Parts: sequence; structure tokens; C-alpha cells
Amino acid sequence: MDIGFVGLGAMGQAMALRLQKAGHTLTVWNRTRAKADLLEQSGAFVAETPAQLASRSDIVFSMLFDDATTESASFGAQGIAEGLRDGGLHICCSTLSLEQARRLRDGHAERGQAYVTANVLGRPPAAQDGSLYVIASGEALQIERAMPLLACLGQKVFIAGSDPVQANLVKLSLNFMIYSTIEQMAEVFTINEKLGTDPALMFEIMTNSFYTAPVHRNYGKLMVAQDYDQPGAPVTLGLKDVAMFLAAGSEQRVPLPFASVARDRLLASIAAGDSERDFVVLQERVRQEAGLKPR
Amino acid sequence: MDIGFVGLGAMGQAMALRLQKAGHTLTVWNRTRAKADLLEQSGAFVAETPAQLASRSDIVFSMLFDDATTESASFGAQGIAEGLRDGGLHICCSTLSLEQARRLRDGHAERGQAYVTANVLGRPPAAQDGSLYVIASGEALQIERAMPLLACLGQKVFIAGSDPVQANLVKLSLNFMIYSTIEQMAEVFTINEKLGTDPALMFEIMTNSFYTAPVHRNYGKLMVAQDYDQPGAPVTLGLKDVAMFLAAGSEQRVPLPFASVARDRLLASIAAGDSERDFVVLQERVRQEAGLKPR
Amino acid sequence: MDIGFVGLGAMGQAMALRLQKAGHTLTVWNRTRAKADLLEQSGAFVAETPAQLASRSDIVFSMLFDDATTESASFGAQGIAEGLRDGGLHICCSTLSLEQARRLRDGHAERGQAYVTANVLGRPPAAQDGSLYVIASGEALQIERAMPLLACLGQKVFIAGSDPVQANLVKLSLNFMIYSTIEQMAEVFTINEKLGTDPALMFEIMTNSFYTAPVHRNYGKLMVAQDYDQPGAPVTLGLKDVAMFLAAGSEQRVPLPFASVARDRLLASIAAGDSERDFVVLQERVRQEAGLKPR
Amino acid sequence: MDIGFVGLGAMGQAMALRLQKAGHTLTVWNRTRAKADLLEQSGAFVAETPAQLASRSDIVFSMLFDDATTESASFGAQGIAEGLRDGGLHICCSTLSLEQARRLRDGHAERGQAYVTANVLGRPPAAQDGSLYVIASGEALQIERAMPLLACLGQKVFIAGSDPVQANLVKLSLNFMIYSTIEQMAEVFTINEKLGTDPALMFEIMTNSFYTAPVHRNYGKLMVAQDYDQPGAPVTLGLKDVAMFLAAGSEQRVPLPFASVARDRLLASIAAGDSERDFVVLQERVRQEAGLKPR
Repeated sequence: MDIGFVGLGAMGQAMALRLQKAGHTLTVWNRTRAKADLLEQSGAFVAETPAQLASRSDIVFSMLFDDATTESASFGAQGIAEGLRDGGLHICCSTLSLEQARRLRDGHAERGQAYVTANVLGRPPAAQDGSLYVIASGEALQIERAMPLLACLGQKVFIAGSDPVQANLVKLSLNFMIYSTIEQMAEVFTINEKLGTDPALMFEIMTNSFYTAPVHRNYGKLMVAQDYDQPGAPVTLGLKDVAMFLAAGSEQRVPLPFASVARDRLLASIAAGDSERDFVVLQERVRQEAGLKPR
Repeated sequence: MDIGFVGLGAMGQAMALRLQKAGHTLTVWNRTRAKADLLEQSGAFVAETPAQLASRSDIVFSMLFDDATTESASFGAQGIAEGLRDGGLHICCSTLSLEQARRLRDGHAERGQAYVTANVLGRPPAAQDGSLYVIASGEALQIERAMPLLACLGQKVFIAGSDPVQANLVKLSLNFMIYSTIEQMAEVFTINEKLGTDPALMFEIMTNSFYTAPVHRNYGKLMVAQDYDQPGAPVTLGLKDVAMFLAAGSEQRVPLPFASVARDRLLASIAAGDSERDFVVLQERVRQEAGLKPR
Repeated sequence: MDIGFVGLGAMGQAMALRLQKAGHTLTVWNRTRAKADLLEQSGAFVAETPAQLASRSDIVFSMLFDDATTESASFGAQGIAEGLRDGGLHICCSTLSLEQARRLRDGHAERGQAYVTANVLGRPPAAQDGSLYVIASGEALQIERAMPLLACLGQKVFIAGSDPVQANLVKLSLNFMIYSTIEQMAEVFTINEKLGTDPALMFEIMTNSFYTAPVHRNYGKLMVAQDYDQPGAPVTLGLKDVAMFLAAGSEQRVPLPFASVARDRLLASIAAGDSERDFVVLQERVRQEAGLKPR
Repeated sequence: MDIGFVGLGAMGQAMALRLQKAGHTLTVWNRTRAKADLLEQSGAFVAETPAQLASRSDIVFSMLFDDATTESASFGAQGIAEGLRDGGLHICCSTLSLEQARRLRDGHAERGQAYVTANVLGRPPAAQDGSLYVIASGEALQIERAMPLLACLGQKVFIAGSDPVQANLVKLSLNFMIYSTIEQMAEVFTINEKLGTDPALMFEIMTNSFYTAPVHRNYGKLMVAQDYDQPGAPVTLGLKDVAMFLAAGSEQRVPLPFASVARDRLLASIAAGDSERDFVVLQERVRQEAGLKPR
């Protein structure tokens, strides 16, 4: 099938490569053209604009940074919507606000185009070997159409419902579970450290008893090591995420006190000068309140 | 070895049986005598008082409901301390406040007796087949002395430190991770349900991606089923636990905002008439705030 | 002086009348024309559009509902900016987000026009007799220019600084002090009522000791009476306000936990069906959590 | 009348002097005898023990530091209860937990003695000139008996109800209104300071508009001056207070989220080394989270 892929960050590239290896003909586009080189070398056509890309594709994926970049690549001048044919399908994988997801859904519908959300869990290596978790939602017919491609990307494809917005909220929710688990573990590590119990031991107890999930293992490990400077998601990205989750709570009328606490920790992290460090650094706010300094 | 076991609730009985099956000679005591019948039938001696029990034992376990019952069975009239010989060891498995744990530690020390905390994770069936997780702390020599017995009870024995109080705080912390995970999942289930996404599907997505720990599986399942009336830990017990954790935060000078939120949910659950239901019912407070009724 | 006044809700009308009575020549505009009748009868010219109004005025006041209506009346087609002459001054009295205030400031500056924020505290009767409190900010020269008019409207005019945005944040802050005082008093009324102490007595004690401010008297009185259905500010308006305050906290990197609690109470009030009642009704959320029903 | 007065801290002394000047015969007692000198010089008899004091008095006031000191002076060896005659009245003015207030009420009742709570608002100078606010509760007959003395101490005497515990909760509630107002103002001062608006100006705006109560004026002034080292109530006392208020919420089943936030600020203040500074210093926690240093 002729596939377009807009947005070639680390994740987007890995996903596009996976699709290419599965035998699909790819047209790609990225704001910074250099990131398209690798895919071009393995046969992808590099479009000048999202519109040109869309005009060559049955289905267009997008994996962009945020609401604004997605809006602009979709409906801006020379955007996807301009090139996409009648009945063409846009599958958007970005983590977006519900509001933006609705704009995409409705904007494509007005133009007679189809739209599906397909958020993914996992990091680039998982994308490359097709072991992501995919959470998709949209009209049943479009989901069916997208399914072979989604199944190529993910070890599991969950269908959240018939409205594309639903998958977006699932994604925001799962991200919320990350930073709220960090806060939860930070409270535990901190109070035990103050009583003389080593966080490394606490981590061992947690992850060898009932707190064995990847969320505990992966983030707990970084917390124990106070390792905040590896390439991961920075505090600013965490704050963007929790803000979108709280905005969803606002429109759906759901108080989310844990999310408010997490938001405050991330704000305080930026105020403390940690905006570009991994958001696990929110742990230091818990420690600082308790009078502990970084080890 | 001559072992005493004070406190024969479901958990205490299962642990005592396990020790008995391992070949130890047991003396047991319980406030309500009938609960000792099973152990008596399999050869245990039923003491009249904790003091009598202690006088017949090298090591005395206790597994009682709370601070008050433990204090009274330890240092009250005819309590363990009265009967325990010089150098005798009391291993306390109850979930206690740090303050009470210190009273036990110091009270036994004043009397020339030894004291170790050995908290356990798991339910009675795990106790019976020796697959609990044990978290112990105390002086190295006493831990060494206790170890063969602890290893008989648990698939893993973690040593939290040389002060008995440390294990108590670890236990309170692990319990906190339960009810704060319930709040976390309740926020997620509720907001997604309001957008039309079935909690059962959310549960499937969570537990098949990165939220795979027993804490997610076991409690998430009850939450999806809105199953609040099975025999488990009631709201009142949850409140007792979070109150002890917050008190620990107070003495150690550690703000614990997630624990405060959980406390408020449990208080509101009692105010709503749910005090004797499983503490998973705190989910209904999240749902009610969002305008949802029990399904 | 030739004054324009855009936005003739209860507050805007009262302010415009006050200016008219002070001898100024008024041009007015309102989306719903009927609200201009009273001012027309006393001599004001009713413009067809904000642009026409601005072209007839040295200084244009606006007092509109929110960000969107202000943006549209200022920079939309036939908006104030289209008609305002070089060096003309727009004095905006609406409660706006910081983001919107900056858009107004910068949008007018780009067009060679002047802009001042002048938020007001008080209700329509205070506007009519010139006893509002006015909080203004902007360039010193423009403030000086606005001062005679502001002094006509308010018993006091506070100058918050040289950036128009500053007055907007002061206004959002003072509004925050209202709803957070309501939450504070609600916690006090509720816990005392549960112990048998009448809220009316608590109110008397508060307001006859150290809690004597208008914020205590005015809102406390409504709370004791459980009077939620008088024309006042509805829950939705309160939520808009707290959302703007939290957004200010987000951009300024200031955690605002009291504001987050208030936000959750207002969200829960909407979920409970109280969206159009006075925002004092947030008290019922505190009471409900405590198991109390409306009296 | 023969009056006993137990507890001669700054407040107790001032109250005792006031009663003495009104013509009552005083017997006094204080743990540190030197504090009784002034009263002795003006004619008071200094008792050896609370019991001796009580045996010489119709009515005994106590004004002690906390639960423990009050318990001991009331029911300990040589305590008030030992000396107080049948039908004698103990008026307790200390800020106590509800639990302790109930112990006093019931302990005196068991001994055929009467008990009234009479908490006071105000500082020593107000005590000396009889301008305190008094909040009393207890059986109507006993209140009547206490009234002439209470009216001598306070400019107003409020009767909270027929159970002595009620006045204790009113007092804890009014104290809660202090520290929660400090948190509220701290959030406002901090966010405005970050946008460049001077706290002194914010204070002027607040206290010249709708936030004019003594609680705003007195504490706001200290906050603007960042004056944390005057003799006032230290952080530890604030924490004791909020802990008693939260404990009241726990027993009455009332979630008190503002109190939880205040508690965390006070805990963090102790962790930061500010335990002996005035509790207004909690403002620095709000500022620190926002990245501000003390000016």
C-alpha cells in the first residue's frame, strides 16, 4: 500500500522503517529534511510538503510533537488535508489534547476524509521490532482499514471505541500513571530514607513483591540512581502531558487530585531549574520538601 | 524449637500452622479461644495467657490487630514480657505505628529481652504454603536467630535494617502503595468512562501493557467489577493504615500529599456509610465527584 | 472627553452611566442592542460596531464577558482596533487570562495604539456611585491619561505596575481569595456542624472576632443560609476564573494547591448539576463528602 | 470569689492579673515557680501543687501548653481533681485536642466535679484589658456560673453549645483559619511577585478592598516584611494545632484538604530548619517551590 509518514523524530522514524520493511511503499516528510535521509536511502520518497505526501498516499500517518505542529501539518497551508484524496485516511499517533483530537476528527470529516487515532506505548526500539502497544479508536470501518498497518507496528492493538478522541484520552491516562507512580514511589523512597532505609533496598522489596510492573521497575531504577540526565522525556514534556490530562478532567467534569499534585511537582521542577532534565527529577521536589539534598 | 504464637486470626493461624508443619513445637494463645482449636488438634499447647505462652517458648511470634492489642498482649498484665525469659525473642508481625514499634523495641530492651519486627505481605493461603514476602528488621544477631523461622514463612525475606522500626515503615509504605494505586486507577477509570470508554477495556489495556503488577491486576479487577463486599480489608482498616503512614510522615518531616488525598477518600467513604466495605470502595468517591453513580 | 464604552452588561452599563453623569460624551456598543437603550435615552450615541465607536472616541473602555468576546470586539472585523486612531487608548476592564491580556497589549502596540488594564472590584451599585476599587496597570503616561476617568469610577485606584498584565493577575488573585475563603469557611462550618455547633453561631463568632472582612461577611452569610440561587456569579464563572488563575500559575511556575482544591470543588459542582447556581454552592461538596445533606 | 489559676505563661499571667484586679482572691500555681512572683506581689497565694490550689478555690482556671501538661495538672498526682471539692468547677482555657477535652469532661464528671471549656482569642495585652474573645461551652448551669468571670476576661463571650468539646473545636477551627489564610495570601503574594508586582502593593490592595480582617492585616504585614523571628507562635505550635484539627476531621469524618496542605507546609518548614520561627514562615515554602529566595 502507498503509505505517507509525517514526522520523523526518533519514534516516527522507527515506525516508518518498520512499515517500510513490511513491504509498504513510503512517502515521508519531516520539517528538518535531514531526518528523512535514512528512509530515503532505503527507498522512501521524500515529499516537499505534507500535501504532496498525502496526494501520493492511501493512508497518511503522522507522529508529531504536539497540538500546534499537528494542526499546522494537517490543516495549514500545504498540509495533509490539502493533498489527501476523498476517503483518504489520516492515522494520527501523536499525544494530543482532546480538543485538538476533535479538531482533527471534525476537520477531516468536513473534507470527506477519514481519521483515526492510533497512540502507541513504547520506545523507538520497540517500534522498530513491532512490539509497541497500540491504542486506536475511530469508526469501525476505518479501524478495519488501519488494522493491518497497526498490527505491523504493535504486539497488541487495543480498540478504545468508535470516537478517535477516546484513544487520545487513554494515552493521556497511561502517561498520567507514569508520573503519578513516580510521585507515589518518591513519597515512599523519601520517608524510608529519612528513617535510614536505603532506596535501593526499598526498590528491591517493591519489585520483588507486588510492585513488579515495568512502570515500577523502569522509573524506580532511575529514581534510586537519581539519574535525571539520560535522554528521556523532559519535565516540560511531562508538564504538557499533565496539563492536557487536567484539561480533559475539566471538560469531562472529573476532579483529578493526583494529577494536580503531579502538576505542582513538575512546575516546581521548572522553577528549580530542572526543566530539561528527565521528569523523574520530580522526585527531588519530594526530597527537598523533606529536607533531603541530592545524594 | 519451642515457638509461641500470639494472635490466631486468619493470618496468624495460617502462619502458625506453617511453623508447626515445619516441625516446631507450638504454644498458642488467642483472645477468643475457639480460634486455637485447629492448632490444638494438630498438637499445639493452648496457653491461658501470653505470659504462660512466653514462659514455654524460646521465640514468641505475635500477629495482632493493632497497636492497642499488641501493647496489651506484650506489656499488659500476663503479657508476653512477663513470661519471656532473659534473652528471649519477640518477633512481631503486626502492622503497627512507628510509635508502637518503638515502644515494643524499648520495652523489651529494658527487660533484657530481644525484639524483631517481621512484617509480611500476602494473604492466608500464601502464609500456609510459605510464599509470603517477609520484611524484617532488628539487630543483626537477632535477625540471624529469627531467620530460619522467617525463611520457613516466606519465599523471600528482606532485611530492612538494624532498627525494628524500619520494617514497620516499609510495611506501611507498601500498604500506602495499594490505596494510592487505587486512587490513581480510579481517576483513570472514571475519566475514561465519562468519555465512553469501558473500565473493563481500560483494565485490559493497563494490565497488558506497562501496568502489570499484582497491585494493578488484583485491585483493578475489583474496581472494574465494583466488587466491594468480598471479605477483604475494610475502609476502617485502610484508614487506620493511612493514618499511621501520615503520622510517620509527621514525625519524619515528610509531606505526603498522595497519602492525604487517600485519607480524605477513606474518610468520605465512612461518611457515605461504606465503612465495612472493602477499601476499594474509595473508587466510588472519585466517581461520585464526577457525577457517576455505581453501575 | 469623547469616551467609547463597549459591553453593556449590568456592570458595563453602570460604569458607562457613571462616566456619562460626570459629563463625558459617550458612544456605546453592545452585541445585544437593547441593553444600550437606557444610555441612549440619556444622550449616548449607539454605534453600529466597535470600530465605529472607536473612531468617535479618544478613549475606549471595554467590559466584556471573557477572552473570546474581548478578542473579537478588539481585533475582529469591525473591532475596536480598526477604528481607534493613532495613539488612541483602549482601557480594558474585563477579567481576562494573562495570555489574552498580552494579546491585547501587543496587538494595540503593533497598531500604534495604547492599552491599559483597569480591573474593578465591586458590584453594579458600587459602579453607579463611583465606589468601586480600581486596579490599573500600564505605561505611566497612559495611566496618567486614564486616571481622571478611573478616579471617577472608583473610590480608590491602585496602580499595580507598568505592564497591563499585572492588573489582570491582581484581579484573578483577588477572585481566588473569594473562592478559597469559601472552601476554608466550608471546612469550618461543616466540621463544627457535625459536632453539633450551628453554622450561624460559627458565623457570628468569626465575624465578631478576627474574620470580619467583607469576604467573610458576604459569603459566610450566603453559606449559612445555603442561599445558592440568588443572581450572583455562577459556578461556571468561578471555574473560568480559577482556570485562568491556575494557567497563570503554570506560566509563572507557581504551584497553587489551594486553587487546585477549589477547581476540583467547582468541577464536582458542575458534575452534581449545580453549574448555574452561585459558586458558593461549592460548600455542598464539602458537606457531601462529610455525609451531610443540604439542610 | 476564690479563684485558682493554673499555668502562668504570658497569657495565663495576664488573665490571672485581670481577674485579680477585678477583686477576686487568687491562688496560683505554675510549674516554674518564678512566673508566679508578680501575682504573689499583688496578693495572690502561690500553691505548692494544683491539688492544694484547687482545695482553696471555688473555680479553677487552667491555661497550659498542651494535652499532656493539662492531663497531668488535672488528673496526675497532686492534680486539680484531687483537690477540687464536690461540685467545684474547672474552666479550661487551653487549646486541646477533642480527645483530651473529652477526657477532662468525663474525668471531672466521674468525680462529681464540673467542667467547662473557655477558649480565648487574643494576645496577652488583650487579656490584661479584658478585650479577649471568649468561646465557651458546657452545661448551661456551669456556663452561667462561669459567666461573670468570662465576661471579666473578654469583650465578647460566645457560647458554642452544651458540650465542652464544642468550644475546643471552634478554637481549633479559628486557628485553622489563620494558617490557611497565610497559605492563601502566600500563593497570591508569590505569583504576583513573579510577575513583578510588589507584595507590599498587593497587601495594600487587599487590605483596602475586601480583605480587611485582622487575619489579613496582621499576618499579611508579617508576610510582606518576611518577619519570621518575632516572638509569636512557632512552626511547631502551628503543626500541633493543624494536627489536632485534622484529628478532629478524622473522628468527625470530614475531609479537610486545606488543612492537609497547611500541614505539609509546616512539616516542610521544620524539615527546612525553621521549626522555631513564627509559623508565618510557611510562606517561604510557597516561595521556594516557585523558585524565589527570601528577599
